Amino acid sequence: MDNEKFATLLEAVRAKRPLVHHITNYVTVNDCANVTICIGGAPVMAHAPEEVAEMVAMSGALVLNIGTLDDRQVQSMLLAGTKANDLGIPVVLDPVGAGATRFRTEAATTLLHKLHISVLKGNAGEIAVLAGADGTVRGVDSHGVSGDPAAIARKLAGRLGIVVAVSGPTDIVTDGARTLLVDNGHPMMGMVSGTGCMAAAIAGAFAAVAPDHVTSTAAALAAFGLAGERAAARCEERAAGRCAGPASFRVALLDEVARLKPADVREDARAREA
Amino acid sequence: MDNEKFATLLEAVRAKRPLVHHITNYVTVNDCANVTICIGGAPVMAHAPEEVAEMVAMSGALVLNIGTLDDRQVQSMLLAGTKANDLGIPVVLDPVGAGATRFRTEAATTLLHKLHISVLKGNAGEIAVLAGADGTVRGVDSHGVSGDPAAIARKLAGRLGIVVAVSGPTDIVTDGARTLLVDNGHPMMGMVSGTGCMAAAIAGAFAAVAPDHVTSTAAALAAFGLAGERAAARCEERAAGRCAGPASFRVALLDEVARLKPADVREDARAREA
Amino acid sequence: MDNEKFATLLEAVRAKRPLVHHITNYVTVNDCANVTICIGGAPVMAHAPEEVAEMVAMSGALVLNIGTLDDRQVQSMLLAGTKANDLGIPVVLDPVGAGATRFRTEAATTLLHKLHISVLKGNAGEIAVLAGADGTVRGVDSHGVSGDPAAIARKLAGRLGIVVAVSGPTDIVTDGARTLLVDNGHPMMGMVSGTGCMAAAIAGAFAAVAPDHVTSTAAALAAFGLAGERAAARCEERAAGRCAGPASFRVALLDEVARLKPADVREDARAREA
Repeated sequence: MDNEKFATLLEAVRAKRPLVHHITNYVTVNDCANVTICIGGAPVMAHAPEEVAEMVAMSGALVLNIGTLDDRQVQSMLLAGTKANDLGIPVVLDPVGAGATRFRTEAATTLLHKLHISVLKGNAGEIAVLAGADGTVRGVDSHGVSGDPAAIARKLAGRLGIVVAVSGPTDIVTDGARTLLVDNGHPMMGMVSGTGCMAAAIAGAFAAVAPDHVTSTAAALAAFGLAGERAAARCEERAAGRCAGPASFRVALLDEVARLKPADVREDARAREA
Repeated sequence: MDNEKFATLLEAVRAKRPLVHHITNYVTVNDCANVTICIGGAPVMAHAPEEVAEMVAMSGALVLNIGTLDDRQVQSMLLAGTKANDLGIPVVLDPVGAGATRFRTEAATTLLHKLHISVLKGNAGEIAVLAGADGTVRGVDSHGVSGDPAAIARKLAGRLGIVVAVSGPTDIVTDGARTLLVDNGHPMMGMVSGTGCMAAAIAGAFAAVAPDHVTSTAAALAAFGLAGERAAARCEERAAGRCAGPASFRVALLDEVARLKPADVREDARAREA
Repeated sequence: MDNEKFATLLEAVRAKRPLVHHITNYVTVNDCANVTICIGGAPVMAHAPEEVAEMVAMSGALVLNIGTLDDRQVQSMLLAGTKANDLGIPVVLDPVGAGATRFRTEAATTLLHKLHISVLKGNAGEIAVLAGADGTVRGVDSHGVSGDPAAIARKLAGRLGIVVAVSGPTDIVTDGARTLLVDNGHPMMGMVSGTGCMAAAIAGAFAAVAPDHVTSTAAALAAFGLAGERAAARCEERAAGRCAGPASFRVALLDEVARLKPADVREDARAREA
């Protein structure tokens, strides 16, 4: 049943080609642009305070990623996010590295409280820190959480009235009431910088075409994870039994996002209610 | 006859290895650097007001791209562009997203009026907006123009005394008097973020070796389009009948820019007088 | 003997997965992140003055790269570097383009004098300029040095009490007393933007696991050069006798960094005392 919905959403992204406005880091920004094109959306990156409100107003979704934040970028995120909220445009927040430094934790907290975030997507450590639970983040990686990530995410989602997604071998997507677990993905995705950012970008494209953001986010993560599985399979074929390496895998990953058909999602997405 | 000139220009780029100074966006900057190397130039990216005049002074061309502009970047562009003008160094402007926001339209207009731009290269929507004609731009994509793009480009080129290039399935290059149409290219180029920016980068490398910028720009677009055709053919071979995807295509595209020989351009460039 | 040490260091990087904090340029930042993952480290990019001291404090090394510097970035480098010095965390400096503009030369000189740099890695022109010898730099490329680069490097290293590495067909690594020459590498590495930056990133990962930075830097350059040799060989296989091009080579290069085993380094590193 979810698979059917996921397939329909991928069809909708391809049909509507939503403009997705990104205010993001300069490390993985090119991957975010390309993955947005590959899934079927149209990316635009703009951060100047003079233009972000105008740019977001013509967009289907806004994706905020604090991977290389500074104070001016946070101000632009607030300007763009406020306009998006006024217009009912969904906002996805990827709190990269929250918990690693006070500045990141505070910036993510500010964005969560001053804006209505539609979807907060982070790793287990980042989400735990933002939930006020015990989590450690080293650089931009989750380094351990005490407690059940699903329970932490549910509580945070319920408290803020948003959708929280926790990336991992099994992705968790919840609005506090309903929780979907997504099992698609491949370990090679952890060997490429920016797969987390790309997941948030795809979540933005899906959020632009559906009001139910538990479903849209789970669909996005299932589609991206499925592309990862297919990329790994393609790499293995080519390299006679093993993936040639992370860079070949990255090329294959983006290719497979573009090649993914709604029918593939219908057949191979692996999501379940928690 | 044009093909012979185009081939000679590619030879000249390879022989002289012009330094091309880019002040550009952080989305596609790496592609711009690599494509500049692949075509035969040497890229340098520098934006600090303390150094742009000194950097451009040792360069063969300056490429300005407003894809992720802010006010400080526009100031640096004016500093670098003024120095380039003083020294007779050609300046290429890619007005990415002009028309999408007032800030971009005004920044492009300011650069066009305060500097002598040698080559203005945009999509049909961007050029129409800057010409004061009817054009719509959504994000960084052209979304419709009322009127004939070639006529609009000719008028703008004549009025400003510059070369205007309009990218599209058929590229238009004009100085108001003479107009060349270039038919090289491949639809897959539209599936990769930054092919427009890369085209401007290559136009910079060609502008550095030739005073006639109608010819140099048409040569650049023909060469890049031809590399796109060859990349698509290579992808198809590899993937048994279809291109493996946009990311494989991007790798092949850069490879083919590097592999392109003057003889290839002489044989396969498809340019004609309008 | 050195090969045995190099192999052990690669093992140590893989085992400890050091966090490497980069303050770097926006052209090649993605390559720096990915190559850090491929060699076995964990990259984090952070430049905000509010967080750099906190971020570097949890890191194993700090890599400073002035490829697209501005005044604010230099301030952040000083903040991060000072904290790194206080905590005994090694600092690698890549003075990209020093000598091309006064701003770059002065920024590199300031960093060298206000911080204790562990490893200064540049091309022959950059190192000559910083040593006060005759060197010319065009854009970010070395364009000739009068005098022996090894002698210049030794003198600079001795004077500042640091390790100086000069990249080139034969890399030179010296602390003024001991000098290692590394012959690994492949000419295709010069056709890819950012291989110099990637070398510095890898030097950072190795510096994080060893106190002897002559050895750690030579190991890093040997490992990266060896990956380049293996990538070129792989490209040649695939393309029936020649490398398909610089972009294919780049993908293969990153793959081979990830695939490199300590045993490969033990067998194929080519380092010698000068």
